[in-house]
Amino acid sequence: MKEPSAKLRVAIAQIDPTVGDLDGNSALISRSMARAREQQADLVVLPELCLPGYPAEDLYLKPHFVRANVAALEALATETTGITALVGFAEPVGQPPERLRDGPAAAPVHNSLALLADGQIAAVHRKNRLPNYGVFDEARYFEPGGEPTVCEISGIRVGLTVCEDLWVEGPPGSLEAAAGARILVNASGSPYLRGKGADRERMFAERARAYGLPLVFCNMVGGQDELVFDGHSFVVDAGGAVVARARQFSEDLLLWELGGGAARIEEPLSDLDEVYAALELGVRDYVRKNGFERALVGLSGGIDSALVALLAADALGPGQLTCVVMPSPYSSEATQADARALAANLGCELIELPIAPAMAAYGEILDSHWSAAGLAAENVQARIRGNLLMALSNDHGSLLLSTGNKSEMSVGYATLYGDMAGGLAVIKDVPKQLVYALVEHRNARAGGPIVPASVLERPPSAELRADQLDEDSLPPYEVLDRILEGYVERDRSREQLVADGLDDEVVDDVLRLVDRAEYKRRQSPPGIRITSKAFGRDRRLPITNRFSG
Amino acid sequence: MKEPSAKLRVAIAQIDPTVGDLDGNSALISRSMARAREQQADLVVLPELCLPGYPAEDLYLKPHFVRANVAALEALATETTGITALVGFAEPVGQPPERLRDGPAAAPVHNSLALLADGQIAAVHRKNRLPNYGVFDEARYFEPGGEPTVCEISGIRVGLTVCEDLWVEGPPGSLEAAAGARILVNASGSPYLRGKGADRERMFAERARAYGLPLVFCNMVGGQDELVFDGHSFVVDAGGAVVARARQFSEDLLLWELGGGAARIEEPLSDLDEVYAALELGVRDYVRKNGFERALVGLSGGIDSALVALLAADALGPGQLTCVVMPSPYSSEATQADARALAANLGCELIELPIAPAMAAYGEILDSHWSAAGLAAENVQARIRGNLLMALSNDHGSLLLSTGNKSEMSVGYATLYGDMAGGLAVIKDVPKQLVYALVEHRNARAGGPIVPASVLERPPSAELRADQLDEDSLPPYEVLDRILEGYVERDRSREQLVADGLDDEVVDDVLRLVDRAEYKRRQSPPGIRITSKAFGRDRRLPITNRFSG
Repeated sequence: MKEPSAKLRVAIAQIDPTVGDLDGNSALISRSMARAREQQADLVVLPELCLPGYPAEDLYLKPHFVRANVAALEALATETTGITALVGFAEPVGQPPERLRDGPAAAPVHNSLALLADGQIAAVHRKNRLPNYGVFDEARYFEPGGEPTVCEISGIRVGLTVCEDLWVEGPPGSLEAAAGARILVNASGSPYLRGKGADRERMFAERARAYGLPLVFCNMVGGQDELVFDGHSFVVDAGGAVVARARQFSEDLLLWELGGGAARIEEPLSDLDEVYAALELGVRDYVRKNGFERALVGLSGGIDSALVALLAADALGPGQLTCVVMPSPYSSEATQADARALAANLGCELIELPIAPAMAAYGEILDSHWSAAGLAAENVQARIRGNLLMALSNDHGSLLLSTGNKSEMSVGYATLYGDMAGGLAVIKDVPKQLVYALVEHRNARAGGPIVPASVLERPPSAELRADQLDEDSLPPYEVLDRILEGYVERDRSREQLVADGLDDEVVDDVLRLVDRAEYKRRQSPPGIRITSKAFGRDRRLPITNRFSG
Repeated sequence: MKEPSAKLRVAIAQIDPTVGDLDGNSALISRSMARAREQQADLVVLPELCLPGYPAEDLYLKPHFVRANVAALEALATETTGITALVGFAEPVGQPPERLRDGPAAAPVHNSLALLADGQIAAVHRKNRLPNYGVFDEARYFEPGGEPTVCEISGIRVGLTVCEDLWVEGPPGSLEAAAGARILVNASGSPYLRGKGADRERMFAERARAYGLPLVFCNMVGGQDELVFDGHSFVVDAGGAVVARARQFSEDLLLWELGGGAARIEEPLSDLDEVYAALELGVRDYVRKNGFERALVGLSGGIDSALVALLAADALGPGQLTCVVMPSPYSSEATQADARALAANLGCELIELPIAPAMAAYGEILDSHWSAAGLAAENVQARIRGNLLMALSNDHGSLLLSTGNKSEMSVGYATLYGDMAGGLAVIKDVPKQLVYALVEHRNARAGGPIVPASVLERPPSAELRADQLDEDSLPPYEVLDRILEGYVERDRSREQLVADGLDDEVVDDVLRLVDRAEYKRRQSPPGIRITSKAFGRDRRLPITNRFSG
């Protein structure tokens, strides 16, 4: 046994796996092991469930998928000459339970971390704190394990934990269980939300101080449907100081040595850069992992579609994005000119499709069967645009990006099958005021207005009837966003919102709109989560529901 | 204390509450208590969580909602003069946990059954087996309780259980815990699937024999988003024989007396009548509880839209249903004539909207920007129809019913925002072959063909191009449905399906189609669950997923 003063060189492999892609993920892990070996690391740490992908949802309940992931793990174990690896995988648990007719099809699995060494699976730690709130459904899939596992790697005793195991104080993850460890490792699939990276550093610093041990945190990176994993892996020393930090929002291999010299410490992104990078990665990975090369976006001349186009051009390259302008008789010259200018500034292809002929055709067909006015007539226009965009998407094989922001999605100020159409709702979790801030920030970063200043200055309008403004139907966005932040993100009641100083009639109106729009949101494309409560699996409310407030 | 030979007269109140409607549900419960009192009952049993509604999803996490449900329960307790009631409610559990940034907003609650007697909440049983598989997410909302509660009602010791408490053998729900009880009560919110009523009778008969006690099962009835609760409450005696049975798919008050005479035993519905009644109730409750009075359906002249129109006319009355026929140049005279005949046979309003002018307009607008052929052109037609139906829905305030069956939804043989548009996908969980069986059955019940025989005989076609047949793109439905039943409902692997004797190339094609269509299903309207695994919260697969089989 080595002396307590012995060194341990650790490589943190912050990889971007794809759910269900056992071959691809094995190759990523294998390359990480090889690179870590090249860098003379003793140990390479990989993220939670990186082999099957996370969250793989009901794939974890398919026994043949779980068997295939175990076979892939065993193959990886044979590559551990001269390196030890910690790899997250789904570990089968005994026999399936007695089958109820609509009961579980299979036994749950363990959310496990395998220690691969000397050609074998040398040890396994099973996650025992299983988050089952917010976006997490781990009780559906996983059986909890026991106490943290402490094992010896290159003569150093290492305590193994998986994500949530360390988020809550007290056992499991207890001081006693970790006794004898010289270092703690936490392998995570911890999804991003605004500011969470800093939160994690604070929380793990507390744990490191409580245990009196350095702590190595390895997080997944990449987009998976609604979630973005931000990477941002790090090491805190026993005093809680960050002594190594990986990049955010991209793959990285970070080296740090117990008892060694200084390591790389990346500077964290600013608040707006962080949100922008999360959305950009979310777009890139959704497009790429779903087998698309190109995307498509309808530009209205408004701020929302401008932000989506910026993000998509940055994520995919301007040559991979087609912008479509679809003027109607209600579109102003000014908005259409701004849309064209934006496409030109981005360097994207632009297609113009005036929709008046289709509006006339619907008028002719519906004739005496409808009132030809009001919301129904406005929605027809939005749905003509949706149909045109989907026709281009189907014909060109491009993914359609929809452009509704969180404020609109909250109150249902959007047309189902119209502007809500698309494969990914890029800014579905971005409130309107943050949309402005992100565009201003991106313009500033470019050193000049990619998005024309008039787009930022003009009062928002859907342009579905003459002289229409968002504020005809909705409270001003600074009021709306404040109510929504309280009601949607923080579950404040009507009474609490009024006590917060918000006008009771406005609160009642907004809450009614939010509750009534559930049916629309249920049919909306997935969106990238950046807040503490996104629409999607984060917030699960029935459509049929008479409670408001 | 009364003698062991004493009698207990029990009323089983099979009610149809609405999620979140505390006032409405309180009124239903109050009326049930009054009617039970009129019938000289000692005890009235109401369903699981009938006061807040079930499943109320994240409403259970709103502390002010939970407080309001407790206040409503306390008000009901004051009405218990001359009657004892068992009422399901959400019971708060202490203080909320330490809040993580994206952690739970509130403490979970107990899924509890209150014994209301003599103006008070006299006892509470807390459900301790919390289903967290299939459509169930009870670990997200509820803290488990302890052993079954045994309490004395009119001198008789009664063991209280909630739904799943009794579905699994062994403790909790143990013989020891129920010791001293003369009768077991199970209050449930047990959703329907084909044949489940008979399953429940068999399972509860086993439990009754194991405990040597009669067992009173009170189930909820009614539709809630994807779920239908079938009622079908009953009593089994200590030997496991059914000695009382309520109606299926409608509210009922069933009386049975411990130590008393014979009770009402409703005859169970036949298999097809049962499925039909489930779908009919699902439509009626979705429309009604969401505040609609009228519905709208597009008739293609095919079998799927015929079944949806039959169900909707039966559920709402033919005067409340508008049928819309939307011929294109690819529609045959025969299908359009069948569609008109069906509307006439049903006695529904019929609107005809030929779509050629819109097809021409899209051709003009898209012009050189697309190939004007293939899937893109077919989808444009389906989306024109979707837009027209939504315009009528928006203008008339009618709920649009979509008509895709489960076989189509499985393989994505449907147009997103086109024929998939609507508020409720009525037969989304009905495989194609069952669609035929249900229409034949309904025709037979009517004593004559409401749906013209030619609709049943003609080979299925989407009629989106000349001479198109479903079998050009898909295997024959008897093969397809067999593969889908194995893959979707029973989680069979590709290898198992081939071992079952299915052609491997056909299996590979179908599995690839199913996996690729996840993005479409994610944006489809909710549908009524009738099988052991419906699309929706029953089957949760990622969109971004590279595993197939």
